[in-house]
Amino acid sequence: MIEYEGTHYLGWQVQPNGQTIQSVIQDCLKRLTGESSQLIGSGRTDAGVHALGQVAHFKTESRMDANTFQRALNSLLPKDIVIRRAEEVEAEFHARRSAKSKVYEYRILNRTTPPAIDRQYIWYIPQKLNLDEMKKATHSLVGEHDFSAFRSVGSSARSSVRNILQADWKRGKGGHLRFEIEATGFLKQMVRAIVGTLVEVGRGKISAQEFKRILDSKDRKEAGPTAPARGLFLKEVKY
Amino acid sequence: MIEYEGTHYLGWQVQPNGQTIQSVIQDCLKRLTGESSQLIGSGRTDAGVHALGQVAHFKTESRMDANTFQRALNSLLPKDIVIRRAEEVEAEFHARRSAKSKVYEYRILNRTTPPAIDRQYIWYIPQKLNLDEMKKATHSLVGEHDFSAFRSVGSSARSSVRNILQADWKRGKGGHLRFEIEATGFLKQMVRAIVGTLVEVGRGKISAQEFKRILDSKDRKEAGPTAPARGLFLKEVKY
Repeated sequence: MIEYEGTHYLGWQVQPNGQTIQSVIQDCLKRLTGESSQLIGSGRTDAGVHALGQVAHFKTESRMDANTFQRALNSLLPKDIVIRRAEEVEAEFHARRSAKSKVYEYRILNRTTPPAIDRQYIWYIPQKLNLDEMKKATHSLVGEHDFSAFRSVGSSARSSVRNILQADWKRGKGGHLRFEIEATGFLKQMVRAIVGTLVEVGRGKISAQEFKRILDSKDRKEAGPTAPARGLFLKEVKY
Repeated sequence: MIEYEGTHYLGWQVQPNGQTIQSVIQDCLKRLTGESSQLIGSGRTDAGVHALGQVAHFKTESRMDANTFQRALNSLLPKDIVIRRAEEVEAEFHARRSAKSKVYEYRILNRTTPPAIDRQYIWYIPQKLNLDEMKKATHSLVGEHDFSAFRSVGSSARSSVRNILQADWKRGKGGHLRFEIEATGFLKQMVRAIVGTLVEVGRGKISAQEFKRILDSKDRKEAGPTAPARGLFLKEVKY
């Protein structure tokens, strides 16, 4: 299980130019084992997105045990990537294909002045948001739907149908809002498109009924803007 | 009221070499008013210490109102310093002398792996801490005491007697611990020396009774190490 601050990376997936979480960990693995292992994650995260519990697997001929791998990796990795847990798994385990569901969290700060603290982890919104209306709109997400309206251009998934197991907002102290969403799978930038559109509901530009209509339209142009990457955390992958 | 991330500053107070919170805000005030105003804070914070609610005052001949000052300052200040609120006060108000009490918060992460997220805001301690024993020791701090045992060398205060109004620990999720302490005043590095010594209690190196004896000894050499600056927040100043 991997925790990372995504601020200084081009996302999870290896890119031709620039550092990614996957490439940095793979480089450390190569230094440890001499092998060029491919590290397969539960899924990609975009540039700037964080993770509290990303999961990935790799194959190795090394005889080092999982605890030793964890300690050795953490001593080589930069401070913004930490291996929280490592374990040996059966050959059939696949970080992406074996995943039953994923949980994402999105953090918003809704107050009149911008944050000095935590600013790389939150989307700051000065206009007062109507959380009750946002919660109402959120309910219409739960269940199996075609999420084409919240699917980014360039997504390669064959089907846009996904099953949302739960989705809700919590109000913290001092204007902090947290959105949590669990699904069997997500489309590219789906959580950020959902949050961006729910914020339009909070701002009163879209009603909860209209949000439902946008979902049913299956048209990305009907939905709101994509929320910034910095507020998004991959919280947990369930197997 | 000022929020700041202290990571990149030499503390609150103007220093001959390097940037401080006070110097940066004073420079912005000068750009706004043309005057060289002295900005008087409720007290100093050390290099690397953060604030959620520092309070400071200044005198000006400017006819700008408080809201305009706030907006103009926030547009000039770097992102790690934010004016949360500004108001015009009576001539008698003095940010330091009028303060009735101050609240500090200290954040610890107590788990086996270091943090990738929030690492500039927490003291990471891998060894399991006994929070019950730490809470017991904490009780002995409340009330009026001579805090020489937790006073840094170089403190210029005449008396070491301070009155602690409340002090306690809260356990959050995932190994997060928060210490909150309110007093009518604090000595130099007093909160960090107290936290450093309470962590020795949590580690089992000092018992809760011994902690009480250390406080009574009035001897800084008896107490534990000074906790790192990055976990400390000036949370509130009460008037």
